[in-house]
Amino acid sequence: MDISHIEHIGIAVKSIEETSKYYEGVLGLKCYAIEEVADQKVKTAFFKVGQTKIELLEPTAEDSTVAKFIENRGEGIHHIAFCVNGIEKCLSEVELAGLRLIDKAPRKGAEGLSIAFLHPKSTFGVLTEMCENKNK
Amino acid sequence: MDISHIEHIGIAVKSIEETSKYYEGVLGLKCYAIEEVADQKVKTAFFKVGQTKIELLEPTAEDSTVAKFIENRGEGIHHIAFCVNGIEKCLSEVELAGLRLIDKAPRKGAEGLSIAFLHPKSTFGVLTEMCENKNK
Repeated sequence: MDISHIEHIGIAVKSIEETSKYYEGVLGLKCYAIEEVADQKVKTAFFKVGQTKIELLEPTAEDSTVAKFIENRGEGIHHIAFCVNGIEKCLSEVELAGLRLIDKAPRKGAEGLSIAFLHPKSTFGVLTEMCENKNK
Repeated sequence: MDISHIEHIGIAVKSIEETSKYYEGVLGLKCYAIEEVADQKVKTAFFKVGQTKIELLEPTAEDSTVAKFIENRGEGIHHIAFCVNGIEKCLSEVELAGLRLIDKAPRKGAEGLSIAFLHPKSTFGVLTEMCENKNK
Protein backbone atom coordinates (compact mmCIF):
# COMPACT_ATOMS: atom_id res chain seq x y z
CA MET A 1 0.00 0.00 0.00
CA ASP A 2 1.38 3.39 -0.95
CA ILE A 3 0.56 5.88 1.83
CA SER A 4 2.34 9.22 1.45
CA HIS A 5 1.15 11.22 4.45
CA ILE A 6 -1.74 12.05 6.73
CA GLU A 7 -4.09 14.01 4.52
CA HIS A 8 -6.29 15.30 7.33
CA ILE A 9 -7.60 14.81 10.83
CA GLY A 10 -11.37 15.12 11.12
CA ILE A 11 -12.68 16.75 14.29
CA ALA A 12 -16.37 16.73 15.23
CA VAL A 13 -17.54 20.09 16.56
CA LYS A 14 -20.89 21.61 17.45
CA SER A 15 -20.03 24.95 15.88
CA ILE A 16 -17.27 25.82 13.44
CA GLU A 17 -17.67 29.46 14.38
CA GLU A 18 -17.02 28.79 18.08
CA THR A 19 -14.22 26.30 17.52
CA SER A 20 -12.45 28.57 15.05
CA LYS A 21 -11.83 31.00 17.89
CA TYR A 22 -9.45 28.37 19.25
CA TYR A 23 -7.85 27.14 16.01
CA GLU A 24 -7.51 30.59 14.46
CA GLY A 25 -7.55 32.90 17.46
CA VAL A 26 -5.30 30.91 19.81
CA LEU A 27 -3.29 28.48 17.66
CA GLY A 28 -2.99 30.98 14.81
CA LEU A 29 -3.96 28.51 12.07
CA LYS A 30 -5.73 29.95 9.06
CA CYS A 31 -9.06 28.64 7.79
CA TYR A 32 -8.62 28.51 4.02
CA ALA A 33 -11.94 26.94 3.01
CA ILE A 34 -15.43 26.21 4.26
CA GLU A 35 -17.45 23.66 2.33
CA GLU A 36 -20.72 21.84 2.82
CA VAL A 37 -20.72 18.11 2.05
CA ALA A 38 -24.41 17.48 1.55
CA ASP A 39 -24.42 13.68 1.49
CA GLN A 40 -22.54 13.52 4.79
CA LYS A 41 -24.73 16.27 6.26
CA VAL A 42 -21.79 18.30 7.49
CA LYS A 43 -20.23 21.67 7.03
CA THR A 44 -16.43 21.47 6.96
CA ALA A 45 -13.73 24.02 7.68
CA PHE A 46 -10.11 23.42 6.67
CA PHE A 47 -6.88 24.58 8.28
CA LYS A 48 -3.47 23.58 6.92
CA VAL A 49 -0.72 22.50 9.35
CA GLY A 50 2.36 21.39 7.42
CA GLN A 51 1.37 18.50 5.14
CA THR A 52 -1.84 17.82 7.01
CA LYS A 53 -5.22 19.50 7.25
CA ILE A 54 -7.38 19.91 10.30
CA GLU A 55 -10.95 19.36 9.08
CA LEU A 56 -13.63 20.62 11.44
CA LEU A 57 -16.93 18.83 10.93
CA GLU A 58 -20.13 20.54 12.02
CA PRO A 59 -23.35 18.56 11.56
CA THR A 60 -26.02 20.21 9.43
CA ALA A 61 -28.80 17.78 10.42
CA GLU A 62 -29.75 15.82 13.53
CA ASP A 63 -29.43 12.49 11.72
CA SER A 64 -25.91 13.24 10.51
CA THR A 65 -23.40 10.60 11.67
CA VAL A 66 -21.30 13.44 13.06
CA ALA A 67 -24.28 14.67 15.12
CA LYS A 68 -24.66 11.13 16.50
CA PHE A 69 -20.94 10.94 17.26
CA ILE A 70 -21.16 14.19 19.27
CA GLU A 71 -24.29 13.00 21.05
CA ASN A 72 -22.60 9.74 22.08
CA ARG A 73 -19.04 10.84 22.79
CA GLY A 74 -18.98 14.62 22.81
CA GLU A 75 -16.92 16.84 20.55
CA GLY A 76 -13.51 15.47 19.64
CA ILE A 77 -11.34 13.71 17.09
CA HIS A 78 -13.59 11.87 14.65
CA HIS A 79 -11.26 10.23 12.12
CA ILE A 80 -7.86 10.25 10.47
CA ALA A 81 -7.34 10.18 6.72
CA PHE A 82 -4.34 8.78 4.91
CA CYS A 83 -3.37 10.08 1.49
CA VAL A 84 -2.76 7.07 -0.78
CA ASN A 85 -1.63 6.56 -4.32
CA GLY A 86 -4.02 4.10 -5.98
CA ILE A 87 -7.09 4.06 -3.77
CA GLU A 88 -8.76 1.11 -5.56
CA LYS A 89 -5.70 -1.10 -5.03
CA CYS A 90 -5.55 0.07 -1.42
CA LEU A 91 -9.17 -0.93 -0.80
CA SER A 92 -8.61 -4.33 -2.43
CA GLU A 93 -5.67 -4.97 -0.12
CA VAL A 94 -7.67 -3.93 2.92
CA GLU A 95 -10.51 -6.22 1.91
CA LEU A 96 -8.15 -9.12 1.16
CA ALA A 97 -6.71 -8.71 4.65
CA GLY A 98 -10.22 -9.38 5.98
CA LEU A 99 -10.95 -5.87 7.20
CA ARG A 100 -14.39 -4.34 7.07
CA LEU A 101 -14.95 -1.47 4.65
CA ILE A 102 -17.64 1.17 5.05
CA ASP A 103 -17.16 2.11 1.39
CA LYS A 104 -16.28 -0.75 -0.94
CA ALA A 105 -15.54 1.69 -3.74
CA PRO A 106 -14.27 5.28 -3.59
CA ARG A 107 -16.79 8.09 -3.56
CA LYS A 108 -16.47 11.87 -3.82
CA GLY A 109 -15.55 13.68 -0.61
CA ALA A 110 -14.73 17.24 0.39
CA GLU A 111 -12.26 19.11 -1.84
CA GLY A 112 -13.05 16.76 -4.73
CA LEU A 113 -11.00 13.90 -3.28
CA SER A 114 -11.80 10.23 -3.90
CA ILE A 115 -12.43 8.82 -0.45
CA ALA A 116 -13.41 5.59 1.32
CA PHE A 117 -13.79 4.75 4.99
CA LEU A 118 -12.61 1.63 6.82
CA HIS A 119 -14.78 0.45 9.70
CA PRO A 120 -13.37 1.26 13.17
CA LYS A 121 -14.23 -2.27 14.34
CA SER A 122 -11.47 -3.48 12.00
CA THR A 123 -8.97 -0.74 12.81
CA PHE A 124 -8.80 -0.89 16.61
CA GLY A 125 -11.32 1.89 17.19
CA VAL A 126 -9.91 4.41 14.73
CA LEU A 127 -12.34 5.52 12.04
CA THR A 128 -9.94 5.58 9.09
CA GLU A 129 -10.35 7.26 5.73
CA MET A 130 -8.28 6.59 2.64
CA CYS A 131 -8.18 9.38 0.12
CA GLU A 132 -6.60 10.24 -3.17
CA ASN A 133 -6.49 13.43 -5.16
CA LYS A 134 -7.12 12.26 -8.72
CA ASN A 135 -7.25 15.80 -10.04
CA LYS A 136 -3.64 16.69 -9.43
CA MET B 1 2.24 30.87 17.86
CA ASP B 2 4.65 29.09 15.58
CA ILE B 3 3.24 25.65 14.72
CA SER B 4 5.14 23.88 11.94
CA HIS B 5 3.28 20.57 11.54
CA ILE B 6 1.48 17.75 13.30
CA GLU B 7 4.21 15.96 15.18
CA HIS B 8 2.18 12.87 16.00
CA ILE B 9 -1.23 11.36 16.55
CA GLY B 10 -1.51 9.31 19.74
CA ILE B 11 -3.70 6.21 19.55
CA ALA B 12 -4.71 4.23 22.65
CA VAL B 13 -4.47 0.48 22.10
CA LYS B 14 -4.74 -2.58 24.31
CA SER B 15 -1.83 -4.32 22.63
CA ILE B 16 0.88 -2.86 20.41
CA GLU B 17 1.62 -6.35 19.16
CA GLU B 18 -1.96 -6.93 17.97
CA THR B 19 -2.43 -3.44 16.55
CA SER B 20 0.87 -3.56 14.67
CA LYS B 21 -0.57 -6.34 12.54
CA TYR B 22 -2.85 -3.67 11.10
CA TYR B 23 -0.43 -0.73 10.88
CA GLU B 24 2.50 -2.78 9.63
CA GLY B 25 0.84 -5.82 8.06
CA VAL B 26 -2.05 -4.10 6.28
CA LEU B 27 -1.11 -0.43 5.91
CA GLY B 28 2.56 -1.23 5.34
CA LEU B 29 3.88 1.37 7.77
CA LYS B 30 7.13 0.55 9.55
CA CYS B 31 7.55 0.62 13.32
CA TYR B 32 10.89 2.36 13.84
CA ALA B 33 10.94 2.54 17.64
CA ILE B 34 9.35 1.11 20.76
CA GLU B 35 9.86 3.02 23.98
CA GLU B 36 8.48 2.84 27.50
CA VAL B 37 7.50 6.17 29.09
CA ALA B 38 7.52 5.23 32.76
CA ASP B 39 5.88 8.35 34.22
CA GLN B 40 2.95 8.06 31.82
CA LYS B 41 2.73 4.29 32.40
CA VAL B 42 2.67 3.48 28.71
CA LYS B 43 4.64 1.62 26.14
CA THR B 44 4.80 3.51 22.83
CA ALA B 45 5.40 2.34 19.27
CA PHE B 46 6.20 4.82 16.51
CA PHE B 47 5.40 4.70 12.78
CA LYS B 48 6.34 7.54 10.43
CA VAL B 49 3.82 8.73 7.82
CA GLY B 50 5.16 11.73 5.93
CA GLN B 51 5.90 14.50 8.44
CA THR B 52 3.78 12.92 11.15
CA LYS B 53 4.15 9.96 13.47
CA ILE B 54 1.51 7.51 14.53
CA GLU B 55 2.21 6.84 18.23
CA LEU B 56 0.52 3.73 19.59
CA LEU B 57 0.04 3.90 23.36
CA GLU B 58 -0.32 0.67 25.31
CA PRO B 59 -0.92 1.05 29.06
CA THR B 60 1.59 -0.69 31.31
CA ALA B 61 -0.49 -0.32 34.50
CA GLU B 62 -4.19 -0.33 35.35
CA ASP B 63 -4.04 3.19 36.78
CA SER B 64 -2.45 4.62 33.62
CA THR B 65 -4.54 7.43 32.11
CA VAL B 66 -4.45 5.53 28.82
CA ALA B 67 -5.88 2.44 30.54
CA LYS B 68 -8.71 4.61 31.90
CA PHE B 69 -9.30 6.12 28.47
CA ILE B 70 -9.67 2.63 26.96
CA GLU B 71 -11.93 1.55 29.81
CA ASN B 72 -14.23 4.53 29.30
CA ARG B 73 -14.20 4.97 25.52
CA GLY B 74 -12.54 1.90 24.03
CA GLU B 75 -9.45 1.88 21.86
CA GLY B 76 -9.07 4.84 19.52
CA ILE B 77 -7.49 8.21 18.86
CA HIS B 78 -6.23 9.64 22.14
CA HIS B 79 -4.59 12.96 21.28
CA ILE B 80 -2.93 15.09 18.61
CA ALA B 81 0.41 16.78 19.04
CA PHE B 82 1.54 19.95 17.30
CA CYS B 83 5.22 20.62 16.73
CA VAL B 84 5.96 24.18 17.85
CA ASN B 85 8.94 26.46 17.86
CA GLY B 86 9.24 28.02 21.32
CA ILE B 87 7.10 25.86 23.58
CA GLU B 88 7.33 28.19 26.60
CA LYS B 89 6.01 31.14 24.57
CA CYS B 90 3.31 28.90 23.16
CA LEU B 91 2.14 27.86 26.64
CA SER B 92 2.12 31.50 27.81
CA GLU B 93 -0.10 32.44 24.88
CA VAL B 94 -2.45 29.55 25.57
CA GLU B 95 -2.70 30.54 29.23
CA LEU B 96 -3.19 34.21 28.37
CA ALA B 97 -6.08 33.18 26.12
CA GLY B 98 -7.73 31.67 29.21
CA LEU B 99 -7.29 28.02 28.23
CA ARG B 100 -6.65 25.32 30.79
CA LEU B 101 -3.24 23.67 30.74
CA ILE B 102 -2.54 20.18 32.06
CA ASP B 103 1.17 21.01 32.12
CA LYS B 104 2.02 24.60 32.99
CA ALA B 105 5.65 24.02 32.03
CA PRO B 106 7.15 21.63 29.47
CA ARG B 107 8.27 18.20 30.66
CA LYS B 108 10.18 15.39 29.01
CA GLY B 109 8.14 13.09 26.74
CA ALA B 110 8.89 10.18 24.43
CA GLU B 111 11.82 10.61 22.05
CA GLY B 112 13.35 13.27 24.31
CA LEU B 113 10.87 15.95 23.23
CA SER B 114 9.74 18.79 25.48
CA ILE B 115 5.99 18.38 25.78
CA ALA B 116 2.93 19.88 27.45
CA PHE B 117 -0.74 19.00 27.26
CA LEU B 118 -3.71 21.36 26.99
CA HIS B 119 -6.90 20.26 28.70
CA PRO B 120 -9.58 18.91 26.32
CA LYS B 121 -12.24 20.95 28.16
CA SER B 122 -10.56 24.04 26.70
CA THR B 123 -9.96 22.62 23.23
CA PHE B 124 -13.41 21.37 22.24
CA GLY B 125 -12.82 17.77 23.31
CA VAL B 126 -9.44 17.29 21.66
CA LEU B 127 -6.64 16.34 24.05
CA THR B 128 -3.88 18.47 22.55
CA GLU B 129 -0.15 18.21 23.07
CA MET B 130 2.42 20.83 22.19
CA CYS B 131 5.93 19.56 21.64
CA GLU B 132 9.32 20.82 20.64
CA ASN B 133 12.54 19.05 19.82
CA LYS B 134 15.17 21.06 21.63
CA ASN B 135 17.93 18.60 20.74
CA LYS B 136 17.94 19.26 17.02
